[in-house]
Amino acid sequence: MSSNKRTPIYEGKAKQIFEGPEPGTLIAHFKDDATAFNNQKKGQIRGKGVINNKISEYLMLRLSEIGIPNHFIRTLNMREQLIRAVEIVPLEVIVRNVAAGSFAKRFGVPEGSALRMPIVEFCLKNDELGDPFVTEDHIFSFDIADPMEVDDIRLMSMRINDFMNGLFRGVGLRLIDFKIEFGRIYDEEGRSKIILADEISPDSCRLWDVTTGEKLDKDRFRQDMGGVEEAYQEVAKRLGVLPSAHIAELDDKRVES
Amino acid sequence: MSSNKRTPIYEGKAKQIFEGPEPGTLIAHFKDDATAFNNQKKGQIRGKGVINNKISEYLMLRLSEIGIPNHFIRTLNMREQLIRAVEIVPLEVIVRNVAAGSFAKRFGVPEGSALRMPIVEFCLKNDELGDPFVTEDHIFSFDIADPMEVDDIRLMSMRINDFMNGLFRGVGLRLIDFKIEFGRIYDEEGRSKIILADEISPDSCRLWDVTTGEKLDKDRFRQDMGGVEEAYQEVAKRLGVLPSAHIAELDDKRVES
Repeated sequence: MSSNKRTPIYEGKAKQIFEGPEPGTLIAHFKDDATAFNNQKKGQIRGKGVINNKISEYLMLRLSEIGIPNHFIRTLNMREQLIRAVEIVPLEVIVRNVAAGSFAKRFGVPEGSALRMPIVEFCLKNDELGDPFVTEDHIFSFDIADPMEVDDIRLMSMRINDFMNGLFRGVGLRLIDFKIEFGRIYDEEGRSKIILADEISPDSCRLWDVTTGEKLDKDRFRQDMGGVEEAYQEVAKRLGVLPSAHIAELDDKRVES
Repeated sequence: MSSNKRTPIYEGKAKQIFEGPEPGTLIAHFKDDATAFNNQKKGQIRGKGVINNKISEYLMLRLSEIGIPNHFIRTLNMREQLIRAVEIVPLEVIVRNVAAGSFAKRFGVPEGSALRMPIVEFCLKNDELGDPFVTEDHIFSFDIADPMEVDDIRLMSMRINDFMNGLFRGVGLRLIDFKIEFGRIYDEEGRSKIILADEISPDSCRLWDVTTGEKLDKDRFRQDMGGVEEAYQEVAKRLGVLPSAHIAELDDKRVES
């Protein structure tokens, strides 16, 4: 059954979510759709869904190995992966190593200045309000997560940052910043646990070539820089998750309707 | 010597700062000038300087009594107080009990909704950048204050909030939110300590009448509600720091040039 004939239970900007084959599972379908600036800019990045599915699988597997629990179960096909159903914590967690994008503007710092220490930022996931920036106080007061959950989220975010800094540095990429999301799962006694959810990909990371400084991420789309598809492919190639260079063609034949 | 003939070493929106009579001291002169919306709105509130000098003295003395160290030494005249020179920590610390102003807008909450828990917000004191909102991570990464200092600032802010909530409630006022600032002082061995600095007044607090909900603070100026002078006088009267109702007149005779 092709994904295009099922009804998604959730339609996001870059992903559709379908019911999974067994309780507690979902299927994430990675689209080529791209948006930026809170949906004001829309477009497509050819083959992006295939690449992000692959990169996200790879990163989630590596993070599992270092003990970061996450929602990934297994890849189903080129655009889809089976994931655990979680109760999403409505926060965008941003970890920054280097000033870039809105952050550089907000603080009047030149893009590219390394931060003295990494910064974790929380934004409320709420498109209508423009995902406003919040602190732990807001998170507690608005009852979005409790202090122990925020501790877990912060600790995992810093570990993910350390690990991915190393991983990307090893393939000649500087991890400037990234956005992740978390969710709750419940055991049989109803006790909850925080796990990493969503995806990690060049849609949600800023990655610059260590030597040339070239941007290999969604900023190429945001800033109409061209070479967007190639940038996503380059990241996948460096991580060793794209043995064939012909993803776009493969993708067209096998998955598109 | 009238304050108007000396040269201030710092000219703020609502205060001038002059050198003090001995090392480590300064003189704060409270003006009637009022600004709002990051200086876009400007005006005067007649007698405000006299009232804020009085209210701030009163609150600083009460806070000293509960062990909150602060910069107040003694009142010099109707518009001036002697204060300790501090190295200002360039943060505006905002404590919120009830949603109001920019906060209500930012989170799409009706003005007047009580928060489940008080929220402490930090903003970088930087007019050019519009005092951007920061978290402890930014504060550490930008080297504005260290973790122990931020702990002290947060703890003192919560204590000040608890105390002032009680104090104002006792005179029929609801403390909606307030802004404070802190500074460092150094002992002979060069060890630093954080103390409360700046002022606390209806310029920096939102105060609503418990029964009628009437606003008795700078929002009357911000929102062109009228009755601005009267609101400031009412707060001073309720706190018992204005035995005479004729401050504006007294002020004109004794202090204005």
